[in-house]
Amino acid sequence: MSVYLHDIPLPEAQGRLEKALQEAGLWRVLGVETIPLDEDALGRVTGEPIWAKISSPHYHASAMDGFAVRAATTNAALPSRPVTLEIGAGAAYVDTGDPLPGWANAVIPIENVESLDELGNITPEIREPASIRIRASVAPWSHVRPLGEDIVATQLVLPAGHVLRAVDLGAIAAAGHQDIPVARKPRVAVQPTGTELVPIGSPLKPGDILEYNSLVLASQIKAMGGEPHRYPIVNDDFELICQRVLETAQKHDLILLNAGSSAGAEDFSAKVVQRLGELLVHGVAVRPGHPVILGLIERRSAIENRESGKELESSGASTVLRSAQRDMVPIIGVPGYPVSAALTVDIFAEPLLARWLGRRSSEPQIETATLTRKLVSPPGDDDFVRVAVGRVGDKLLAAPLARGAGVITSLVQADGLALIPRGVQGVEAGQPVRVRLYRNRAELDRTIFCIGSHDLTLDLLAQFLAEHDRRFTSANVGSQGGLIALRRGEAHLAGSHLLNPETGEYNISYIRQYLPGIPVKVVALVGRDQGLIVKKGNPWDIRRLEDLTRPEIQFVNRQRGAGTRVLLDYQLSLLGLASERIAGYDQEEYTHLGVAAAIASGRADCGLGIAAAAQALDLEFIPLFQERYDLVIPKQFAEGVLLAPLHEVLADRRFREAVSQLTGYDVSVMGSIVLEE
Amino acid sequence: MSVYLHDIPLPEAQGRLEKALQEAGLWRVLGVETIPLDEDALGRVTGEPIWAKISSPHYHASAMDGFAVRAATTNAALPSRPVTLEIGAGAAYVDTGDPLPGWANAVIPIENVESLDELGNITPEIREPASIRIRASVAPWSHVRPLGEDIVATQLVLPAGHVLRAVDLGAIAAAGHQDIPVARKPRVAVQPTGTELVPIGSPLKPGDILEYNSLVLASQIKAMGGEPHRYPIVNDDFELICQRVLETAQKHDLILLNAGSSAGAEDFSAKVVQRLGELLVHGVAVRPGHPVILGLIERRSAIENRESGKELESSGASTVLRSAQRDMVPIIGVPGYPVSAALTVDIFAEPLLARWLGRRSSEPQIETATLTRKLVSPPGDDDFVRVAVGRVGDKLLAAPLARGAGVITSLVQADGLALIPRGVQGVEAGQPVRVRLYRNRAELDRTIFCIGSHDLTLDLLAQFLAEHDRRFTSANVGSQGGLIALRRGEAHLAGSHLLNPETGEYNISYIRQYLPGIPVKVVALVGRDQGLIVKKGNPWDIRRLEDLTRPEIQFVNRQRGAGTRVLLDYQLSLLGLASERIAGYDQEEYTHLGVAAAIASGRADCGLGIAAAAQALDLEFIPLFQERYDLVIPKQFAEGVLLAPLHEVLADRRFREAVSQLTGYDVSVMGSIVLEE
Repeated sequence: MSVYLHDIPLPEAQGRLEKALQEAGLWRVLGVETIPLDEDALGRVTGEPIWAKISSPHYHASAMDGFAVRAATTNAALPSRPVTLEIGAGAAYVDTGDPLPGWANAVIPIENVESLDELGNITPEIREPASIRIRASVAPWSHVRPLGEDIVATQLVLPAGHVLRAVDLGAIAAAGHQDIPVARKPRVAVQPTGTELVPIGSPLKPGDILEYNSLVLASQIKAMGGEPHRYPIVNDDFELICQRVLETAQKHDLILLNAGSSAGAEDFSAKVVQRLGELLVHGVAVRPGHPVILGLIERRSAIENRESGKELESSGASTVLRSAQRDMVPIIGVPGYPVSAALTVDIFAEPLLARWLGRRSSEPQIETATLTRKLVSPPGDDDFVRVAVGRVGDKLLAAPLARGAGVITSLVQADGLALIPRGVQGVEAGQPVRVRLYRNRAELDRTIFCIGSHDLTLDLLAQFLAEHDRRFTSANVGSQGGLIALRRGEAHLAGSHLLNPETGEYNISYIRQYLPGIPVKVVALVGRDQGLIVKKGNPWDIRRLEDLTRPEIQFVNRQRGAGTRVLLDYQLSLLGLASERIAGYDQEEYTHLGVAAAIASGRADCGLGIAAAAQALDLEFIPLFQERYDLVIPKQFAEGVLLAPLHEVLADRRFREAVSQLTGYDVSVMGSIVLEE
Repeated sequence: MSVYLHDIPLPEAQGRLEKALQEAGLWRVLGVETIPLDEDALGRVTGEPIWAKISSPHYHASAMDGFAVRAATTNAALPSRPVTLEIGAGAAYVDTGDPLPGWANAVIPIENVESLDELGNITPEIREPASIRIRASVAPWSHVRPLGEDIVATQLVLPAGHVLRAVDLGAIAAAGHQDIPVARKPRVAVQPTGTELVPIGSPLKPGDILEYNSLVLASQIKAMGGEPHRYPIVNDDFELICQRVLETAQKHDLILLNAGSSAGAEDFSAKVVQRLGELLVHGVAVRPGHPVILGLIERRSAIENRESGKELESSGASTVLRSAQRDMVPIIGVPGYPVSAALTVDIFAEPLLARWLGRRSSEPQIETATLTRKLVSPPGDDDFVRVAVGRVGDKLLAAPLARGAGVITSLVQADGLALIPRGVQGVEAGQPVRVRLYRNRAELDRTIFCIGSHDLTLDLLAQFLAEHDRRFTSANVGSQGGLIALRRGEAHLAGSHLLNPETGEYNISYIRQYLPGIPVKVVALVGRDQGLIVKKGNPWDIRRLEDLTRPEIQFVNRQRGAGTRVLLDYQLSLLGLASERIAGYDQEEYTHLGVAAAIASGRADCGLGIAAAAQALDLEFIPLFQERYDLVIPKQFAEGVLLAPLHEVLADRRFREAVSQLTGYDVSVMGSIVLEE
């Protein structure tokens, strides 16, 4: 069986691991330990069923402040014909929780009693009267919490495999326990490898890669109920990695060996597993994350065994060794890209830890959502696509986010994962997809879903809306893309700064074109400077658009459809400049910051964009034009409850001030109505 | 304004607390502290927005193992007309993650290259060829991860108030941080009071109450992100309690003073708050939990101030003291019953901790469910009713559980809380109620909802079904109640042991009567002994049903409709014994264990029930009859996927063995089909 980076289907990979663990006697709860019943028991998993040692209450308890009586002695009481009971003989005062005297079988609440002194006068001194008078009978066992009302000794309080919550701890204590048997936490070694890796916080030079995967992996393990242990980075050295893996195998239940899981020259993980144990899988048909390794490491000093293997075999001892159950430790070779790494641990380690703890595997909330744009997917793979999710009208929408396996921020921003299953080559926009949700319905119901052009003020808007109990999710598809999304009913609003090159007016003519028959409200968000972004000190002395045609100047453009691109084309046409004369006109970036980053890195000398982006990367900005950035809101949403706080924020002086702190913004137009249909 | 146990509406109570905290300057994030970016940061809340310090990648990185090139030099390459590039001049080998040489702007993956030796022959030695040959051009920036692809320096990584997950920690590290500002954990003192309280694990005498509320409360606080501190029990002594509260006030942000919050003689909490600070609320119109106290304690030594108050006032210093913002600590007087206590903390402390941490308050999943039986509710109160929840067909059902505020196991078993709002006096069976769910939809979708007669084997059944990925929820309403629930489509199956007193046959005639036109499958679960439960040693020498009529014998019965009650009446009629001759015939318990507990506690001498219940409470059992306990399953569910594992478990030898370990059960009938329509 070849296992060398030959992608196999996900269920088969999981099946091989499960089977190998079963054979190694490791597909079970690893162990049970007894811990004190205190706050640290929270989140632990019961290792055995918990049976009640005592009943609760453990005696018949009064449920009220009042008088314990024998019910039969009250039978004759009527409003018109009271019955008098003597304290000490037929009645006794009890506080809530007090045990009933042996002869009593009911309690009369204090407020239903007239208390009498020795002479039979009604007295306000209620606790120690000589006798009491009642004007209604009580049924047996009224206002009594009988023995065992809550828990009867020997009953099952909690089954094994239960994840403990606060109230569970109370019930276990009530059932007479001081300690509790819980599944021991699986110990997981997290081993980063890679000569190019440097620890978090190190100064960086090109080629250095910050090693933060071990932090993410260890945190995932902790959240799953395991006990992670992060080891220092090991260089790409086969012998060193073998040594470290063997060392960690002695003390852990699982090893996560990060990076080196692919098939490159410096990828040693598969060879390490082959040397120290058994390689079960190399490559799983899942994206992101396919160069996954699954295997078992032999816990005893495998290298030494290997070296002395010949003698053992000749002496016949190895037969014994083989037939006995070997002491194995599973190992997962985790791919290096952070998104792949995190998903690999979710997919392969979570069910393993669940089994070892005896609890159920996590149960994500799965919903069907409508895809907002076409997705292409490798047909042989289970493809997990990070998506933003929002509810617009009665549609649940999933907007794909950045797909690069290196883009960890897309996992941070994701509201869920859309699953494009094996056998499906892609999904068209408007088609349904299954989404594993990270947010619950309440969160989605208060989510404002914005699609369109990006602007830095949207981040601030999101923060202010959060104070008004709204989530603000924005997907960046450019101004025109936003209007198209509105037409399809796939967003609550769109940010747009589309210049009409014929009239010089913003947005209106495009709205007429893209949203015919859809009444909208258009509100100005900001006026913002557009200008040329250049390197600090402006080494090429760029001043005007005309300078872009100089042969030594490398330009970086925005993508087709972006408002900034339209502005550029408009201004070029006013000047009569042909775009072919600009080197780099075809080099496209999708955000203002992308343009700035291209210049900061030297990939380009100049781009058109906004001041804030230049400032962010410590570049220079030459303002040329001012444009208006509007929010386009279909009438049906503009007047709804969901978006009401948006209008409040636009009128909020604090928001206005926060935006004006950003360079290159003019807040004087903020909130003014551009169009209302 | 009177605040003495005058129940006010919940929103008003919450409003008073919020207003008082605002005035005291405490309605805000308490503080921000910087902690290292490690696994302990999980679950903490960002105290400030996190901005990126560096970009990621911080250089243009190769996304593949391959050769860095200048894209323009590949333009001429065609399958039929390859282009050759020399290593060192026009091409350079790069591993994934390596920085691109300054002159390069694209990468050709290794698999798209023919590597050549010095003589121009194709060579398998791929890493250090003399030159490479390509047969296709590449676009600029192909297979490159440009600087800032993931994160651009200065961009917002996470807003303030974000609860940190594993992937967030990775993104923060990638953005160049080693530490992270988080909201400091609110410190919460949990103070149990009550002379009758004894610590967990103490030997118990009647009247002793196990003090486990502080464990539950502290665990709730921990789960909410606070730092709880449990104090030892203080007796019901006004001065002692004042002293302790003042002491805890010095070091904590919130005090939970447990019990003593009502208006009884030993209830000091309200007076303590009045003495040491300000009593805002005493009594909230919410069930369970209405005797809630909300107040503020003055952190400085209030008792001393009070004593020296006169001098201060006369000297005019108190004016200064009053106008300055006083150093206050909120206190919640938490009711003593465990269910009330837990709900009080959920309702009042959770939003407070959320505000102090700067995160959102928890967002429960709320669904509309159909109530399975009538609920009566005090019209002035917001009433939270613990319910079992299951999905049967297309109905989401909520079955009310025990309502006693002392029954903590009902909180353990609850799948959610049904809210009966103020102004509503009750809800009829079949009507919709709003339910705060503790389970997500996936869990509910795999829940088998059983309503009917209780039997101990159902607990075992639940454990075995859990291994087959099923939750088994059972609500105990007696055999007839179960059949009625089936008729209304409110359960997947019912447990029943209804004897037809005319034929001696079990269940069939009742099914004909209660489920006309509903095809069912009836499967035998167990045969079980019914007999007399008596005290150890059988002191009254009870042997037969006839003995029940002896005047000295106090009987305890099951409720009307219970199978055991029908059996008793049948056997009495066979013997010609009138029920009036049995003392205690009208004394009803709702479970077998309830009957046993009544006998164990001396409340009765004898009852009819099953052997397991007698054994559970160390009582004696005199077997008299054997009866059959069946599972009645409507055809539509019997053949469905949800219940398929039930049939497997009934055929499982391990389950059979587990049941036969219980005394008084006959498993020979298990799984046999009694009726199939």
